[in-house]
Amino acid sequence: MKARTKTAFLFDMDGTLLDSVYEHVMAWGQALHENKIEVPVWKIHRRIGMSGGLFTAALTRELGHDIDEATKTKLRDRHAEIYNAISARIQPLPGAVKLLEHLSANDIPWAIATSSQMKTAAPVLAKFGVDPAKHVVVTRDMVRYAKPDPDLFLAAAEKLGVDIKEACVVGDAVWDMLASKRAHALGIGFLSGGYGEEELIRAGAYRVFEDPADMLTHIDEVGGRR
Amino acid sequence: MKARTKTAFLFDMDGTLLDSVYEHVMAWGQALHENKIEVPVWKIHRRIGMSGGLFTAALTRELGHDIDEATKTKLRDRHAEIYNAISARIQPLPGAVKLLEHLSANDIPWAIATSSQMKTAAPVLAKFGVDPAKHVVVTRDMVRYAKPDPDLFLAAAEKLGVDIKEACVVGDAVWDMLASKRAHALGIGFLSGGYGEEELIRAGAYRVFEDPADMLTHIDEVGGRR
Repeated sequence: MKARTKTAFLFDMDGTLLDSVYEHVMAWGQALHENKIEVPVWKIHRRIGMSGGLFTAALTRELGHDIDEATKTKLRDRHAEIYNAISARIQPLPGAVKLLEHLSANDIPWAIATSSQMKTAAPVLAKFGVDPAKHVVVTRDMVRYAKPDPDLFLAAAEKLGVDIKEACVVGDAVWDMLASKRAHALGIGFLSGGYGEEELIRAGAYRVFEDPADMLTHIDEVGGRR
Repeated sequence: MKARTKTAFLFDMDGTLLDSVYEHVMAWGQALHENKIEVPVWKIHRRIGMSGGLFTAALTRELGHDIDEATKTKLRDRHAEIYNAISARIQPLPGAVKLLEHLSANDIPWAIATSSQMKTAAPVLAKFGVDPAKHVVVTRDMVRYAKPDPDLFLAAAEKLGVDIKEACVVGDAVWDMLASKRAHALGIGFLSGGYGEEELIRAGAYRVFEDPADMLTHIDEVGGRR
């Protein structure tokens, strides 16, 4: 009989630990509007958390005409600029700090895997007590492809030294769930990024919680034991 | 044999005809933050479109402590102030103007029923060619209770002179769908306010479209004939 490996948790950041999805939506909306590209806001919302390259590719398809490379770069830079200007007021989601503390205190491996660049992620990681020098944090610049590709989560599991098939990917976006399926991990969805429960389940979530606080309350349901 | 009455369409405004839900979310978020009330943004999003009174009541329950009347008034005023400052850049959703034109051109009765006050609604109605002097527009100040109570839609059907049981309520929020059930109308959900499809169906939608353009493409599915 083969013993079961201990579960590890691989967390998305925006919308999962940090209450930042809507700020990202508005920053993209403003950047697009300034560049005379009009996209309904809900369609931006539903694409947050996917790789920036895929985001603009999907946008191109939506608009039915190409966006040139210079404009794509301008959009990404302007989004980062607007987002960074308001990021000081962004708060961790309820229970984010306590959930990570609980896992650490119980020797349960965890990591953060985000589609953000390290330069965007680093200033906010401190808000929930995460130090990239001490904890495993995988960012966009460390892998070839971001979500919904599985690379970020595969790299996080490898850095933790755990088997991805025994890991749970925890995220608020459909893109996290699709990446978790492709990585052969289990997906846990959070409502805190503004997706509906069934959207997450249809994308592969095996369990859905409201936010980190709700997951901590129900941690025994998903293998969070010592 | 009793002849079927022609279908009428009763439209919500924010998130249904106007791409304004996320701006409302951010305006509420900022007003709350300025008053030292911290609420995760997705919980604000999921309450847009319900009556302002119920919104603050739900918030009170969420926070677990009371918000005094003076603060409630301050919050509502500040939300209106922030929203009005940015409302100039808000656009109609794709197809909103064409859909209403199609209904008018085909003698299909339609009205707008919104939880907003007339003073907030009037400046934006012009954006999709609606004139409260010529079209039926029911606002918050004209009824006792806003959504999810059915009053706004009942008043709109009465003003049109149509039977509410033969009418379709068209909205982006769960609150529109609940109000449509209570009014004994059929509910049509739009994804353009950022709810997921199943959230709308579970709340009673008998059909879900992306936005006004998508409904116009499929207008024959829901009784939009001459």
